[in-house]
Amino acid sequence: MTSDVITSIPLVRDRVTEARRARRRIGLVPTMGALHAGHKRLIDLARAENDLVIVSIFVNPLQFDRPEDLEKYPRALQADADVCAAAGVDVVFAPPVAEMYPEPLDCAIDVGRVAEHLCGRFRPGHFRGVATVVMKLFQIAQPDRAYFGEKDAQQLAVIRRMVADFNVPIEIVGVPTVREPDGLALSSRNQRLQPGERRAATVLYEALKVASAQVAGGVRDAAGVRQAARQVVEREPAVRLEYLEIVEPREMQPVEHIDGPVIAAGAIWVGGTRLIDNMICVPP
Amino acid sequence: MTSDVITSIPLVRDRVTEARRARRRIGLVPTMGALHAGHKRLIDLARAENDLVIVSIFVNPLQFDRPEDLEKYPRALQADADVCAAAGVDVVFAPPVAEMYPEPLDCAIDVGRVAEHLCGRFRPGHFRGVATVVMKLFQIAQPDRAYFGEKDAQQLAVIRRMVADFNVPIEIVGVPTVREPDGLALSSRNQRLQPGERRAATVLYEALKVASAQVAGGVRDAAGVRQAARQVVEREPAVRLEYLEIVEPREMQPVEHIDGPVIAAGAIWVGGTRLIDNMICVPP
Repeated sequence: MTSDVITSIPLVRDRVTEARRARRRIGLVPTMGALHAGHKRLIDLARAENDLVIVSIFVNPLQFDRPEDLEKYPRALQADADVCAAAGVDVVFAPPVAEMYPEPLDCAIDVGRVAEHLCGRFRPGHFRGVATVVMKLFQIAQPDRAYFGEKDAQQLAVIRRMVADFNVPIEIVGVPTVREPDGLALSSRNQRLQPGERRAATVLYEALKVASAQVAGGVRDAAGVRQAARQVVEREPAVRLEYLEIVEPREMQPVEHIDGPVIAAGAIWVGGTRLIDNMICVPP
Repeated sequence: MTSDVITSIPLVRDRVTEARRARRRIGLVPTMGALHAGHKRLIDLARAENDLVIVSIFVNPLQFDRPEDLEKYPRALQADADVCAAAGVDVVFAPPVAEMYPEPLDCAIDVGRVAEHLCGRFRPGHFRGVATVVMKLFQIAQPDRAYFGEKDAQQLAVIRRMVADFNVPIEIVGVPTVREPDGLALSSRNQRLQPGERRAATVLYEALKVASAQVAGGVRDAAGVRQAARQVVEREPAVRLEYLEIVEPREMQPVEHIDGPVIAAGAIWVGGTRLIDNMICVPP
């Protein structure tokens, strides 16, 4: 079985129009490719819940704040198409940059509070680029449901907020993070890690587990939880901590007092690679 | 015959979903109410080209830069519903503010170059508010076509640009301006004019006609055309000129040399009322 690899917007539109007329439910999995088991989980869920499954593969220049990150971002279209085919994906939408941006856009989605902290603070323009390209993909694929990984918790919150604010008629499905046996969250950027870096990278997961255990154990002071988790990362000399924050799950605002479920979220640098992860922390 | 007046987003969605399933073409006419013959022309065209016609009536707070303009903006829902019923409109969507903005939005459509000049320069945030509410209305009503008056030329250019940039699957139809016998462009704000103001207000139309005649007569220097048109307005003491510019029709950028169709666009104040108008100017 193979998936149809489509690079043009009008051709994917034809498939979408045909499917909608036949009342087939459409599931969209937006990705930047270099597909791993985390993406596979999104795809499998989309496959189970919809009639037509579209996986988009587009490394979106608009959301990269550092040119070298865009340049080094892994690309593997043939392998991705094989993964999609094996998973029963109907359409792989893999547009070239000129198809998505025939000229510089004059409009963009401006994102407010929900993009203020965490990655939004350290990657200027990142969520503006994410929201803008996702809005484009939503209008092109017109899915009933779209699937996003919880690993990118702030991205998921931004998308949910955008969909609510603009009344976009799409159900957003968040899918739990897939991890390596030692806890490292799957990410396309993991393949850049050298062996020593790979071992050190698990420290972020260990730190988030400490935060989660403290909250589960009844600690209510977010500053204390945050400090305990930071110390775990700071003990690993091969890693530089970018941020580690305790935020509420809807608007991603830092909290002082923990009186409900919160998210512990962090970003680390391991050599030249930036990794993020997060964990829901539920008080007793 | 009556139109269904619907105030809730889920209820209008039900109508839209039902229509789409039946493959009925949907036409949307977004308005702020106080409907006049200009709106009627939009509605009649929508009626002729679609199976389900939705007229939205929503005085959008987000696009008003001056609180007193929002407060004074004419509202006439019952008369509007009668106009819609007589014109064969299927659905009047008239949401309260709390239905469109249950909480302050965190996202907005940021509009760039196309909103830099003309009204965009004098009404900060106006086109951001327009684009944001129109994107919401598009996602709610999911029309095949949406109808906008050419009287608001820059608004039409902003909407066309937004639809192109975000790949919104909607055809934007621009509809020629309807004028009074003496040339005054119809506008809901005209009803605020006192009799003397009403007579003076036609000066903008006269000025645009001068610009159009000059361009048709072969004048290529935009500054000269602009100056000739401005002088017409300046001869009327009851009117204050806000702007009068010669711009290209796509990105609404001022031109120096006229080598194709341009738009002459102006805004005037007549007492406390601000009026706009524009005219296409085609060189020989």
